[in-house]
Amino acid sequence: MKNICIVGLGLLGGSFGLALRKFKPELHHIGVDISEENSKKALELKIVDEVSTLEKALPEADLVVLATPVDVLVKQVPQTLDLIKENAIVLDFGSTKHLICQSVENHSKRSRFIATHPIAGTENSGPGAAFSDLFISKMIILCDVDKTDPDVLSIIKDLFLLMKMRVEIMTSKGHDEHIAFVSHLSHVSSFALGSTVLEIEKNEKNIFIMAGSGFDSTVRLAKSSPDMWTPIFDQNKKNVSRALQLYIEKLTYFKEILDSENSEEIHKFMKETNDIRRVLKNPS
Amino acid sequence: MKNICIVGLGLLGGSFGLALRKFKPELHHIGVDISEENSKKALELKIVDEVSTLEKALPEADLVVLATPVDVLVKQVPQTLDLIKENAIVLDFGSTKHLICQSVENHSKRSRFIATHPIAGTENSGPGAAFSDLFISKMIILCDVDKTDPDVLSIIKDLFLLMKMRVEIMTSKGHDEHIAFVSHLSHVSSFALGSTVLEIEKNEKNIFIMAGSGFDSTVRLAKSSPDMWTPIFDQNKKNVSRALQLYIEKLTYFKEILDSENSEEIHKFMKETNDIRRVLKNPS
Repeated sequence: MKNICIVGLGLLGGSFGLALRKFKPELHHIGVDISEENSKKALELKIVDEVSTLEKALPEADLVVLATPVDVLVKQVPQTLDLIKENAIVLDFGSTKHLICQSVENHSKRSRFIATHPIAGTENSGPGAAFSDLFISKMIILCDVDKTDPDVLSIIKDLFLLMKMRVEIMTSKGHDEHIAFVSHLSHVSSFALGSTVLEIEKNEKNIFIMAGSGFDSTVRLAKSSPDMWTPIFDQNKKNVSRALQLYIEKLTYFKEILDSENSEEIHKFMKETNDIRRVLKNPS
Repeated sequence: MKNICIVGLGLLGGSFGLALRKFKPELHHIGVDISEENSKKALELKIVDEVSTLEKALPEADLVVLATPVDVLVKQVPQTLDLIKENAIVLDFGSTKHLICQSVENHSKRSRFIATHPIAGTENSGPGAAFSDLFISKMIILCDVDKTDPDVLSIIKDLFLLMKMRVEIMTSKGHDEHIAFVSHLSHVSSFALGSTVLEIEKNEKNIFIMAGSGFDSTVRLAKSSPDMWTPIFDQNKKNVSRALQLYIEKLTYFKEILDSENSEEIHKFMKETNDIRRVLKNPS
């Protein structure tokens, strides 16, 4: 492996480029981004050695990493497979997986593609937010790997392990169902919280004064990029809608026991939910 | 000021004791806690110099800090005022303020009491979770200060400023209304999120695998103590219920635009809420 092409020089693509400098310093990095500003910044930050276009860069690349929004990926993954040289490898970092896998289902080079989702990110975006340690100790989920050549799977798995990531395998459908609850719902809950507080607290000084670390952490995801998240919600709307339905039911139940002064049930609701501490530390 | 009595040797009381060691090292600390384990631990950690009972400690104290749950405080604040010596000062750290202020409205020593709420805490509890820097740079809200003697206000304000806290003044009623949105609602949203995910993801391994920093931060408050939070919700139920009502409406609206594939509105909803980043940094 000599040339790597990173398409999308934002937080994920940028951090991946910086991490590779540490773990695979021999690689030559070609960057592609529709934003000139991002391209310039990525060169400055040494995320990439040169910037180029898809048409020029893809035929030269041994590994192509697509770190673009998921609405772009459903078109870009097949287009990329069209343009790569034989035996090159393509992977994507999209937060949804099913539609992206479907987009190349019948592609002649399907087996050179591997669908991945690194469970890593922050509320910030752009190459300026990238840092080399973003992926360390993070989980990366590889999807529908039975459609991928064994050599591709093996090379990519080894690369992620070298980067100190933890690797898990799932179906793309299962991934999207579970991630709706464990990530996408968190984002909706946070955006709705931010929206509620902004609407009520017209005097912003009260938010500033009273916001402690609790509010900060629950509202942090409400700073996330709408350009990135609108297509994620769009692609995973069925699963997110189901998660949201159950979440609204839980909140409605909590409101009921609060309004009826049922302190015993309120205590029980919280006590049972405390179990999340154990689960996050120590899966059974 | 010579003797300080800290009642409730948990996260807040314990951290306050440790902070005072730095900023007022000349004080003698008497601790009171109904838990023998907490008392022992607080002695070990040098949060206090001795442990005692309310009956013995209160008449000796120049300053009494009540850091107990809010259902205890509505009885304990008047009882404490009954027992202190002349010119001693009593303050509480409760997360609700209106009922606590009401509990001493007509007390003959009302003016020696000052109602405070330090906007500081973590999801952990007990003296073992205490640390001396918990209060640094945090906001502390003083309520209904027109009922407090000017010398008490001045001494306590100076003490908090010495401890590098930021001091704001509010009515107890206004405090409870605003804190419902900016703190209590965060806790409900987090508990409901944890409960939803625990119910759906029967296979706990999926939560563990897919939980990233986003889920971690939105669900962090669901690890909070039910013993502490049940009485807070109980005392502030009207305001929390109103906040919850609006939050559920926001989520229901988001579900509607998601189900109707209204990507434009979804984008707008998130874009507008991104304003929380500016507000938290930079109040107008």
